[in-house]
Amino acid sequence: MSTLIKPNYQECIEACQKCLVDCQVCITKMAGKDSMNDCPYCCVQCVESCLACIKMLASESKWAPEYCRLCAEICDYCAEQCGAHDHDHCKACAESCRRCAEACRQVAAA
Amino acid sequence: MSTLIKPNYQECIEACQKCLVDCQVCITKMAGKDSMNDCPYCCVQCVESCLACIKMLASESKWAPEYCRLCAEICDYCAEQCGAHDHDHCKACAESCRRCAEACRQVAAA
Amino acid sequence: MSTLIKPNYQECIEACQKCLVDCQVCITKMAGKDSMNDCPYCCVQCVESCLACIKMLASESKWAPEYCRLCAEICDYCAEQCGAHDHDHCKACAESCRRCAEACRQVAAA
Amino acid sequence: MSTLIKPNYQECIEACQKCLVDCQVCITKMAGKDSMNDCPYCCVQCVESCLACIKMLASESKWAPEYCRLCAEICDYCAEQCGAHDHDHCKACAESCRRCAEACRQVAAA
Repeated sequence: MSTLIKPNYQECIEACQKCLVDCQVCITKMAGKDSMNDCPYCCVQCVESCLACIKMLASESKWAPEYCRLCAEICDYCAEQCGAHDHDHCKACAESCRRCAEACRQVAAA
Repeated sequence: MSTLIKPNYQECIEACQKCLVDCQVCITKMAGKDSMNDCPYCCVQCVESCLACIKMLASESKWAPEYCRLCAEICDYCAEQCGAHDHDHCKACAESCRRCAEACRQVAAA
Repeated sequence: MSTLIKPNYQECIEACQKCLVDCQVCITKMAGKDSMNDCPYCCVQCVESCLACIKMLASESKWAPEYCRLCAEICDYCAEQCGAHDHDHCKACAESCRRCAEACRQVAAA
Repeated sequence: MSTLIKPNYQECIEACQKCLVDCQVCITKMAGKDSMNDCPYCCVQCVESCLACIKMLASESKWAPEYCRLCAEICDYCAEQCGAHDHDHCKACAESCRRCAEACRQVAAA
């Protein structure tokens, strides 16, 4: 990771990067499959919230904390939905969402 | 649309914008639903190929025609998959994919 | 535009699509050029806020109004910065930002 | 990184993630500043080529190798341009572009 970004932003970017990829994997593996809850609809929203955070954090936007606050909410929702599924990709996604929510909340609160 | 972009690029951007949105709608409506073919997996790929084209065309990138060439292939595939479904959103998506493929091929061939 | 999306969402998507492209053009034309204010840094943030809105609106995300609220603020800032420049691309960008801010505020207030 | 993605795809995703962020930082730091070459215009294109790869690789798209092939070309160009600058962010960006080009070429050749 770049040493040109402040440490808590770096951690948050890394958490968002992992979450974006795990959500994209979840969307892909769940495509065309029956689901008993909001997965992978939650992931469709979560990849976008993570991407917006990555870009706003890397650009040190004044609005980065606000994007992180929204992303934390979407990650909580996605962790809850994917966490209710037993697929490996859903469990991995839920775990990444939990960590991303935490990292985003730290930026939002700073 | 901006008058600062060359006309065939403008048309292609508009076709990609419509295709991106109709694919995103298709992904959303199909999320968690059983599918007998690659829809909405094809749409997951198509939104990204359209986004890359929009950005490369607006930036008049030297690589824009190459991105359009790939996007046309993905749109063809997506039109075929979504075109086999009867849902309104799949039919709309297939139609947007066909138009986008055509616009992309014109840029790729120019 | 898709008839599957509610009318005020459609208008907002179209305003965001135009704003995203005009900001991307502005970033491209200003790249490597001296600027006396925040243009094109404002556009770098604005393309992302518009993209997030487009995706969240097309997916009818519960968070779409929140993303629109943030996008309106970023568009106001970008309109102010680009509006202070005389380049054609900056004037076009500022105008698109103003319209996008208005459309976003309507969704955010609904 | 997810264990659900094949190893060479994982490595390439990580290289693209780092490259995307370092290019976004470079765009941000160079915004409004005079440049004697294509930096940061090259970075504007490079963030998009990296994003397309990340999404296509995570989705195991049939077109992922093609997107990686284009990304390697854009990374080579960006490494050359940013590599000619002495700013810390340009040097960091050039190094990330070189690694990303290599990782992308490995996927493209596989």
